[in-house]
Amino acid sequence: MIGHGFMGAAHSQGWRVAPRFFDLPLDPAMQVVVGRDPGRTAEAAATWGWLEAATDWREVIRRDDIDLIDIVTPGDTHAEIAIAALRAGKHVLCEKPLANTVAEAEAMAAAAEDAARAGVRSMVGFTYRRVPATTFARRLVAEGRIGEVRQVRAEYLQDWLADENAPLTWRLNKDIAGSGSLGDIGAHAVDLTEFITGQTVDRVSGILETLVAERPVMAEGVGLSGTAGAERGAVTVDDLALFTGRLSGGALASFEATRFRTGRKNALRIEISGSRGALAFDLERMNELEFYDATLPESEQGFRRIFVTEPSHPYADRWWPTGHMLGYEHGFSHQVVDLVTAIAERTDPAPSFADGLHVQRVLDAVERSSAADGAWQTTR
Amino acid sequence: MIGHGFMGAAHSQGWRVAPRFFDLPLDPAMQVVVGRDPGRTAEAAATWGWLEAATDWREVIRRDDIDLIDIVTPGDTHAEIAIAALRAGKHVLCEKPLANTVAEAEAMAAAAEDAARAGVRSMVGFTYRRVPATTFARRLVAEGRIGEVRQVRAEYLQDWLADENAPLTWRLNKDIAGSGSLGDIGAHAVDLTEFITGQTVDRVSGILETLVAERPVMAEGVGLSGTAGAERGAVTVDDLALFTGRLSGGALASFEATRFRTGRKNALRIEISGSRGALAFDLERMNELEFYDATLPESEQGFRRIFVTEPSHPYADRWWPTGHMLGYEHGFSHQVVDLVTAIAERTDPAPSFADGLHVQRVLDAVERSSAADGAWQTTR
Amino acid sequence: MIGHGFMGAAHSQGWRVAPRFFDLPLDPAMQVVVGRDPGRTAEAAATWGWLEAATDWREVIRRDDIDLIDIVTPGDTHAEIAIAALRAGKHVLCEKPLANTVAEAEAMAAAAEDAARAGVRSMVGFTYRRVPATTFARRLVAEGRIGEVRQVRAEYLQDWLADENAPLTWRLNKDIAGSGSLGDIGAHAVDLTEFITGQTVDRVSGILETLVAERPVMAEGVGLSGTAGAERGAVTVDDLALFTGRLSGGALASFEATRFRTGRKNALRIEISGSRGALAFDLERMNELEFYDATLPESEQGFRRIFVTEPSHPYADRWWPTGHMLGYEHGFSHQVVDLVTAIAERTDPAPSFADGLHVQRVLDAVERSSAADGAWQTTR
Amino acid sequence: MIGHGFMGAAHSQGWRVAPRFFDLPLDPAMQVVVGRDPGRTAEAAATWGWLEAATDWREVIRRDDIDLIDIVTPGDTHAEIAIAALRAGKHVLCEKPLANTVAEAEAMAAAAEDAARAGVRSMVGFTYRRVPATTFARRLVAEGRIGEVRQVRAEYLQDWLADENAPLTWRLNKDIAGSGSLGDIGAHAVDLTEFITGQTVDRVSGILETLVAERPVMAEGVGLSGTAGAERGAVTVDDLALFTGRLSGGALASFEATRFRTGRKNALRIEISGSRGALAFDLERMNELEFYDATLPESEQGFRRIFVTEPSHPYADRWWPTGHMLGYEHGFSHQVVDLVTAIAERTDPAPSFADGLHVQRVLDAVERSSAADGAWQTTR
Repeated sequence: MIGHGFMGAAHSQGWRVAPRFFDLPLDPAMQVVVGRDPGRTAEAAATWGWLEAATDWREVIRRDDIDLIDIVTPGDTHAEIAIAALRAGKHVLCEKPLANTVAEAEAMAAAAEDAARAGVRSMVGFTYRRVPATTFARRLVAEGRIGEVRQVRAEYLQDWLADENAPLTWRLNKDIAGSGSLGDIGAHAVDLTEFITGQTVDRVSGILETLVAERPVMAEGVGLSGTAGAERGAVTVDDLALFTGRLSGGALASFEATRFRTGRKNALRIEISGSRGALAFDLERMNELEFYDATLPESEQGFRRIFVTEPSHPYADRWWPTGHMLGYEHGFSHQVVDLVTAIAERTDPAPSFADGLHVQRVLDAVERSSAADGAWQTTR
Repeated sequence: MIGHGFMGAAHSQGWRVAPRFFDLPLDPAMQVVVGRDPGRTAEAAATWGWLEAATDWREVIRRDDIDLIDIVTPGDTHAEIAIAALRAGKHVLCEKPLANTVAEAEAMAAAAEDAARAGVRSMVGFTYRRVPATTFARRLVAEGRIGEVRQVRAEYLQDWLADENAPLTWRLNKDIAGSGSLGDIGAHAVDLTEFITGQTVDRVSGILETLVAERPVMAEGVGLSGTAGAERGAVTVDDLALFTGRLSGGALASFEATRFRTGRKNALRIEISGSRGALAFDLERMNELEFYDATLPESEQGFRRIFVTEPSHPYADRWWPTGHMLGYEHGFSHQVVDLVTAIAERTDPAPSFADGLHVQRVLDAVERSSAADGAWQTTR
Repeated sequence: MIGHGFMGAAHSQGWRVAPRFFDLPLDPAMQVVVGRDPGRTAEAAATWGWLEAATDWREVIRRDDIDLIDIVTPGDTHAEIAIAALRAGKHVLCEKPLANTVAEAEAMAAAAEDAARAGVRSMVGFTYRRVPATTFARRLVAEGRIGEVRQVRAEYLQDWLADENAPLTWRLNKDIAGSGSLGDIGAHAVDLTEFITGQTVDRVSGILETLVAERPVMAEGVGLSGTAGAERGAVTVDDLALFTGRLSGGALASFEATRFRTGRKNALRIEISGSRGALAFDLERMNELEFYDATLPESEQGFRRIFVTEPSHPYADRWWPTGHMLGYEHGFSHQVVDLVTAIAERTDPAPSFADGLHVQRVLDAVERSSAADGAWQTTR
Repeated sequence: MIGHGFMGAAHSQGWRVAPRFFDLPLDPAMQVVVGRDPGRTAEAAATWGWLEAATDWREVIRRDDIDLIDIVTPGDTHAEIAIAALRAGKHVLCEKPLANTVAEAEAMAAAAEDAARAGVRSMVGFTYRRVPATTFARRLVAEGRIGEVRQVRAEYLQDWLADENAPLTWRLNKDIAGSGSLGDIGAHAVDLTEFITGQTVDRVSGILETLVAERPVMAEGVGLSGTAGAERGAVTVDDLALFTGRLSGGALASFEATRFRTGRKNALRIEISGSRGALAFDLERMNELEFYDATLPESEQGFRRIFVTEPSHPYADRWWPTGHMLGYEHGFSHQVVDLVTAIAERTDPAPSFADGLHVQRVLDAVERSSAADGAWQTTR
């Protein structure tokens, strides 16, 4: 695993726990974690249960005993690492967004396609696809239970920047993070829309906005929880993204990604309206899926709160009895299960780097539209 | 109409509005309102749109041009007025509870039975039966949609006495009000249970409790909104009633009536669990009914929020388009519709005085059980 | 009252009920209702309690005993009637949208301004301003309880056109209705945003969409509930409107108006995010307001469901005790109260025709933006 | 760890994960799991990550390298194992209910008291105390935020026995399970009430009921998921328990434990009403706590949905960022943290065996009351 921040903790938990609850066809070992700072990396290895710590990812990629590289670094480093790993014949799991630019993502997708011909697998980490409720939603759409998709509303609402004195972290620096709310959380809204509907976002019109232009600069290297000083620096990414997309099936989808929706902490929500029904999901109540069946008698129609914890629900039978909730981290175990299964079965896992590239193109088109007074842009 | 308090306002609104939205088979005129104080009664007549005001209800009952007596006085006066009216051949609508004692209620039910033989109709005012959602719930149970009733939870939660300096109104005086939370709101929980399930509560065990024993005495005649002085008087009714009932079909029902559930304002809630499904209703969201259909595939089961405003729902087609809410007072219009229709069609309206007597017997059995250390008491 | 459709019923109920619950400074009489068809107009007069029926609105406007004209006809007739009435010195209440075009609305606003100089009052019927919860929301914003407005999401979601065989009513004809979801329900979302925030929508970018292009033609004159034949005609209005607006205070607002959000019946929802808190309202639960106070200690923050039925809430003290719900029609009583009070007190009621014109300009700018590939348009 | 059923999985997850997210003062090793069947025990060891498997718990207790015994067997074996372990100087974590009878529980509590004098710690596994929301609720009550406790409603609602052909598992056998809904889930409702209020249940009145008297017998040894045959056997435990308790502070608490509340899967709910506020919790939405603050201005009061995922909330800062949900199993990690911390700090952890004994006495008193026609019974 390359990197060891918040995402490193989540990925480590996935690797550690998945084999305990699922019958994996292979037996993954948590071998080595890589970071720049030797001390902090060693500490991460101890905390998260990796056997070794290393500081040079290139060296790790060359090792024969390493079969899979899990990339959890910031987006600006994804391309270089992933391409090198794929060329070295290692399977790659890369945290989203795939890259910070379309050009990088294109190079990565091309490398993944080359590698796939040699049986090397790659996958991008949109774990919200693997919440039982969202996987089940996709199944219901595929089975025609909501009919033809007519409209989508997808939003990812947070509020951790609502405080204008929240510090200037790397996530607010365009050079490192690529974009702000758009790439960090809007990407999830786009991917989830495409995953559940089985369609792609083909054209977009939108606007990006930075609500607080300057924030306190942090003492170097301090990270998220550091004390900020009096100096203020420029926020170079968006705080809010509002855009409309045209799906490949013809329907319009309305998107919002924001870190300023006061009181909303992690509300990735999607509602899909179809000719025969509708589905609604909210990550803040991730064990529930609301389903409206418009084919029932008029007097009996209503949004139905399905508690997605039954043995017949995706992934759910391997965990706890009905009614016992799963949390944020379980998607990372499911990701491990699906990736390891694909490797063992010699199939290509989803979402692929090509899928990740497509999301990147959607984000890029939104940026272009915002710069072009809202004019519609294609994502191809 | 005899009486003109809060209930007088609600009944007046029912009489005024019902003919505007429903095609009544008869054309009721709001003729005369009766009260003790001439000035305040005249004011009530003007405010609520009654043609005359009077102070002697016996005189009004003797009038040939009066066909129906609507009783909205406190419970201690119901028996005398209702029996006199029925004997005078007037149809009677009597606000709940039917009476303050079983003996009074028995006399009223007997008078109603006698009168019925002469074609004189009587009805007791449990208006929460006439909320579209509860009427629809009864229909679903009758159609077998939840199968055999297995359990009921019925509660009526308020908090207006949570403030221990709330004044000592007539509703806290056993001589006038008969009982406290039990008769005032617990009666609704009992009636709604019997109405929706189509069963009776045959035996009960329970406890009554007064949480605040003394409250500030109000200056005489001032009513609910008066200023209370330093003097404190004894609360002689219950603040809280907790009881369990055995339904005629065999299931247990758990009841709670309280004015001390902080934050709950008017939460008459009922949940009925059956072998094939369940229903849940909350008066604080009275336009909604939750229905759980256990005959659906396991993965699709869930409580369904039915917005009970469709043309196919009870009463709903005469009001506004789908999705437009009704409020508290609409049940009073529905009561007028059902009563006037029964009179015109020469049928006996429900709930009858016998139904009201039965509720009174349930309340009485709860009081007896509470006095007998929780021993089960029959309601017959 | 000119017109007698669904809105005629609602306005009549307002005129009838308001004086019973509020102390009006004047005593309005429901004198005459005007419609084209003598028979149906007479029937409407009888049903809704108007003393007379008439077929010529010009004649009614000339009558000395008429002080106020209430216009509830489709939007294409508003301008002519309202201007004539104002010139005749009659106060005017005009149902929304003010008109079908900006030009008409401008003429109306000019006429209203002229009339105001002579003490003649005019008001446009955005009744959702007069739901206690929305009025209270405006008060909280004005008091600074959510700080500076940072973002708004306003949506009006219905689904009555989701059935593609729903008939081609006048509301789907641009010549009569002006626009579709945009003017019919989007107008409410715009007005409510401006009302609660106290700001105006100054620029917009958006798209209009017709999802079902042809629908069954109805037999002439049959109206909403008629039987549709095999013939299909073109829908000439939008089914869905998605747009973004720039508020005068600088914040972005995201709007959606749709009749295709399956399962949503009458969901006028607004969420306003500010620097110190947030507010959320949903017309499907119109007695509730959610308030998030970001100035509380972090561990105690949360959206608070305020049941807007306390005596201290707007309008609420004149109706029922705490916890007893109001419904759709009560806003029409509040409208009567505010209008009659303004007339008596010789002040200008809100929303004025100028406010209505402004909403019309916003709608027009959305249409222009949709035609211009999403380019931002000014609403001035 | 003695036993390896569903609870074994949960405890194992706790032991495995806790050290990764919390800084434990000691470093627990998952040494040996004990079961009757050698093959299945070895499989459990491999699956859950225990170093060894064994079949003789007495032998394990004698081992010098074992410091702590974690008991997750059915209730009928708890006393023997726990007492032996404590006498051997091992710290003991015992799954709830502490025992199947009061006599056994008394012996266990006495053994625990003896052992404590020698510095040996014991704890009973009521993990729902360690959900951040419930721990936070206790803190708010202790700080006086809801004032004096006036009323409690505590219910644990499931529906997995609603199907009358659900098989006759060991949980329906009184000899093994001790009791049914009462001991299995009612115990949690009692413990949570005592934990949050800081009071004890001193007297009770109630009724136990078996709704389905006979169920299909399972082929021997097959367990929960086995195929049931045509033979039916007697259910010897309760399906439903309804009881009222008197708290040590004087308030009444109403309890319900049921496996027949159709549609409710794992709804451990508690609502505590106090003189200054109220709290409500539902395990089906375990990351949320509703708080009503009655000291706010009347117009601003409402139940507030606190998302209990802030760094300032109990346990929450060690997991994920704000808004990222925890699930069922996290309580088991918190249990490990608190137990290991107590051992290291030489303090007695809670809930103690004495606490577990008290819960057992409450359950016993409910059984006695049910047998005595609802007569109130003391729990001392």
